[in-house]
Amino acid sequence: MTNLAVLELSAARGLKNIEPGDDLARLIIAAFARNDLSLRAGDVVVVAQKIVSKAEGRLVDLATVTPSACAVQLAAETGKDPRLIEVILSESVRVVRKRPGLLIVEHRLGFVMANAGVDQSNVTTSDGTQCALLLPENPDRSAAALRERLLVLTGAAVGVVINDSFGRPWRRGTVGVALGAAGLPALIDLRGRPDLFGRTMEVSIIGFADEIAAAASLLMGQADEGRPVVLVRGLDWSAPSTAAATIVRPPEEDLFR
Amino acid sequence: MTNLAVLELSAARGLKNIEPGDDLARLIIAAFARNDLSLRAGDVVVVAQKIVSKAEGRLVDLATVTPSACAVQLAAETGKDPRLIEVILSESVRVVRKRPGLLIVEHRLGFVMANAGVDQSNVTTSDGTQCALLLPENPDRSAAALRERLLVLTGAAVGVVINDSFGRPWRRGTVGVALGAAGLPALIDLRGRPDLFGRTMEVSIIGFADEIAAAASLLMGQADEGRPVVLVRGLDWSAPSTAAATIVRPPEEDLFR
Repeated sequence: MTNLAVLELSAARGLKNIEPGDDLARLIIAAFARNDLSLRAGDVVVVAQKIVSKAEGRLVDLATVTPSACAVQLAAETGKDPRLIEVILSESVRVVRKRPGLLIVEHRLGFVMANAGVDQSNVTTSDGTQCALLLPENPDRSAAALRERLLVLTGAAVGVVINDSFGRPWRRGTVGVALGAAGLPALIDLRGRPDLFGRTMEVSIIGFADEIAAAASLLMGQADEGRPVVLVRGLDWSAPSTAAATIVRPPEEDLFR
Repeated sequence: MTNLAVLELSAARGLKNIEPGDDLARLIIAAFARNDLSLRAGDVVVVAQKIVSKAEGRLVDLATVTPSACAVQLAAETGKDPRLIEVILSESVRVVRKRPGLLIVEHRLGFVMANAGVDQSNVTTSDGTQCALLLPENPDRSAAALRERLLVLTGAAVGVVINDSFGRPWRRGTVGVALGAAGLPALIDLRGRPDLFGRTMEVSIIGFADEIAAAASLLMGQADEGRPVVLVRGLDWSAPSTAAATIVRPPEEDLFR
């Protein structure tokens, strides 16, 4: 028996440009199969939010958007396209911070994030239409559906994480976080477990899905080459599966609202 | 040539309990050598803050601490040991949030974190003295020194990250973050680089060292077994090395102070 704990992350290059209606599970399986990798029980598949949203057709043609007066005002304050702001507001429950170049909102799913996760930079459809790309309607549901489809196609019960990159207060740089999760615990609660010296641990809810999301981001790349799917092998957990929605801190325990 | 990008993380079990003055570099090399792993140029070694602090003797015997009136007051408000609060305040520049069971401060190094990173739960010295363990005096310097020592002992130029687990606003669960870094870019600035479609990317400073820290946390374990050193192989970067101090967001660009 080895004395090492090993985690292996593999990202397949060469996934095609995803279009609405694409069968992501089949494309993911094929991409890994071309590299002699097949899914196994206990693997975790991390998928970039962008391709999940594309497969789900979460595109809004900006030419069809009429900005509200509020969106026009906010566009002037932030220096963004008023139609994009309109789309962002339609996905948000409140504006958290704004300044030129930056709009941080609370997304309808509770995520505090820039631009409600609405992405304009990498999205042009094949006919050249300029689109905004929204987050999946329900990323936990998307993760569960993808997990189910992977199970049907391969027989392997894997975990699925849908990740995105978030900025953070106080620290520069974005890090991968989990928007959706299925088949694994989004959080692992160690409260009450004894530590190395038998005392009870104080702060000990682990952001398991977020750490997986961050790890996968290291391989995904951001700019010239896209690797939107990462296979994580070697994770170990005993906690029950929970959705990424449980990561969102309820207002009553949030000191930073 | 393979079409896969692969990242491998390995954590060695069985590192001895670290004591002040221990040669961490030698112990780390030995722990991996027992598993037939030797360091190579381009590897990144992630080390838990706790063992760096222990090796540096950053222990404070709580029996020697006399709490100030301010510490006594804050102890009553948070339900913590006044001596521990005194130690926390000595490492902090301001209290950011407090409530029963929770004290979030700005550490003298700029980190906004619980308890200034002062740890009581896993620290008892061999003679049974109850101690608090502070963060390293300068984690970037610690990382650079460890990197230099690893280079001398093995000839391999590796990156070093010193990590810890932080809670976050808005999201439940702690995630690994980088307190110190050497030999790699703590942040990777992609601003101005074209995206997949040739447009310029908007939000594109990657929290590289933090993502590495989070990935390593997945293997480190928190409770019954400690694996405080993780070797990360397969990372790729071209940006120049920068210290983890660059991650701390300067007050003038921080919207959440």
